[in-house]
Amino acid sequence: MSEFFWSVRVYYEDTDAGGIVYYANYLRFMERARTEWLRALGFEQDRLRRDTGRVFVVRRAQLDFRRPARFNDALQVGVRLLECRRASLRMEQRVLRDAGAAGLCCAAQLQLACVDGASLRPRAIPQPLRSEIADGHR
Amino acid sequence: MSEFFWSVRVYYEDTDAGGIVYYANYLRFMERARTEWLRALGFEQDRLRRDTGRVFVVRRAQLDFRRPARFNDALQVGVRLLECRRASLRMEQRVLRDAGAAGLCCAAQLQLACVDGASLRPRAIPQPLRSEIADGHR
Amino acid sequence: MSEFFWSVRVYYEDTDAGGIVYYANYLRFMERARTEWLRALGFEQDRLRRDTGRVFVVRRAQLDFRRPARFNDALQVGVRLLECRRASLRMEQRVLRDAGAAGLCCAAQLQLACVDGASLRPRAIPQPLRSEIADGHR
Amino acid sequence: MSEFFWSVRVYYEDTDAGGIVYYANYLRFMERARTEWLRALGFEQDRLRRDTGRVFVVRRAQLDFRRPARFNDALQVGVRLLECRRASLRMEQRVLRDAGAAGLCCAAQLQLACVDGASLRPRAIPQPLRSEIADGHR
Repeated sequence: MSEFFWSVRVYYEDTDAGGIVYYANYLRFMERARTEWLRALGFEQDRLRRDTGRVFVVRRAQLDFRRPARFNDALQVGVRLLECRRASLRMEQRVLRDAGAAGLCCAAQLQLACVDGASLRPRAIPQPLRSEIADGHR
Repeated sequence: MSEFFWSVRVYYEDTDAGGIVYYANYLRFMERARTEWLRALGFEQDRLRRDTGRVFVVRRAQLDFRRPARFNDALQVGVRLLECRRASLRMEQRVLRDAGAAGLCCAAQLQLACVDGASLRPRAIPQPLRSEIADGHR
Repeated sequence: MSEFFWSVRVYYEDTDAGGIVYYANYLRFMERARTEWLRALGFEQDRLRRDTGRVFVVRRAQLDFRRPARFNDALQVGVRLLECRRASLRMEQRVLRDAGAAGLCCAAQLQLACVDGASLRPRAIPQPLRSEIADGHR
Repeated sequence: MSEFFWSVRVYYEDTDAGGIVYYANYLRFMERARTEWLRALGFEQDRLRRDTGRVFVVRRAQLDFRRPARFNDALQVGVRLLECRRASLRMEQRVLRDAGAAGLCCAAQLQLACVDGASLRPRAIPQPLRSEIADGHR
């Protein structure tokens, strides 16, 4: 599957006193990119919740922090689907400062679950979305 | 009314690349102190919401940023009630690094409204809480 | 002076358990817009700091929280200069969900100071930037 | 090694519109606990940086999100050292709502590196700290 990219600018709010992006914030950047990836596939998560009661939650994350991003950097955040199952997704995400391995700030593997927004119990990914994701995956 | 104080430690998450506390985070520190002030009066906000459907929201804030707080500082956050009306509160808050005017990091005046958690429309402050606040105010 | 606008999307990270944007985050949105306003005038703040040692800090903020923004909202954040002095700026900012008064989420007046990034003492706004700002102001 | 615990209260700032703690914030809670663990061993990180130029950064994190924490929860955050090498630490951290497996919100394995605060290159953990950590580890 081809990688989807979303641009994220680093503002002061994202940095810490070490002069670099506070590492937990890469998770935020990656979620922004996943949200925009779903939007690019035609799915709005607020509508998904209203219509089907379902939301996505992160179940597992493996994060490698390689090189620090800094204030004012223009980052590219990649989203690549590895697997789409009935009620979960496995994804690979990267936060890049420049193209090439030297520009890799953070590499991650994430497992997301589709759950009921109220009970937080696993639910099947709604059908139109699942087909759309699987198509993009092919 | 005597001032209520709550201790807040500055962690990396609170700072920015300028080496100081990111200014929006003083609002977080002040809310932590207000939450603990209500708890000290015997009121848990999650229970308040469950039992009465009401929550407090900030309607207006006037913030003066005086001297920067830094990583690892042990701050004191003050809460002082100025006025308790039927559906709103006016409060004064201070974030201090040391006692004395030289240690003042941020001074604020806040107006809070009691609202219905779903509609966000103004509602009277529930009676036991209102009495408790008024007592503390005297 | 005409108003500069910057788009901000509301992600989960920006919301709280009340289902709305956590109020301190409007300060973040407003800073993103100020950063982009300076960039549109041709000034990068990381470069400004490297070349002149100067940074902008917020000294005073007056915030009115009108209507809540929610998850997935596409906001417009306005920046309007009110006054440009030797070492400080006064600005008006708005966060809008829709055009029109009913769409106003947050209105703010801010006072910013130009300071030395190390000592945090007031410094004159560097000349090319000051001219550029004054021009835009006219 | 025995586990060090630090209490963290969940405030509105920590939650999202799903009504639960925003998952990236567990990384913040865990860092607060690590900071307090170092402080309990007698080491202040601001002083460590001033005296030795060294800071700790997270290189790798493996996170399992089990059960959501909610607004107003009183959490316990555990810190357990797995290994102390010349320039890095491996740690296990847990965020608990109650004692027992059912109360586990987040389980993590983290790899931290000791680096020079300016160049961010690996540096040996300063000796007194390394001995102290190794002692606690035994």
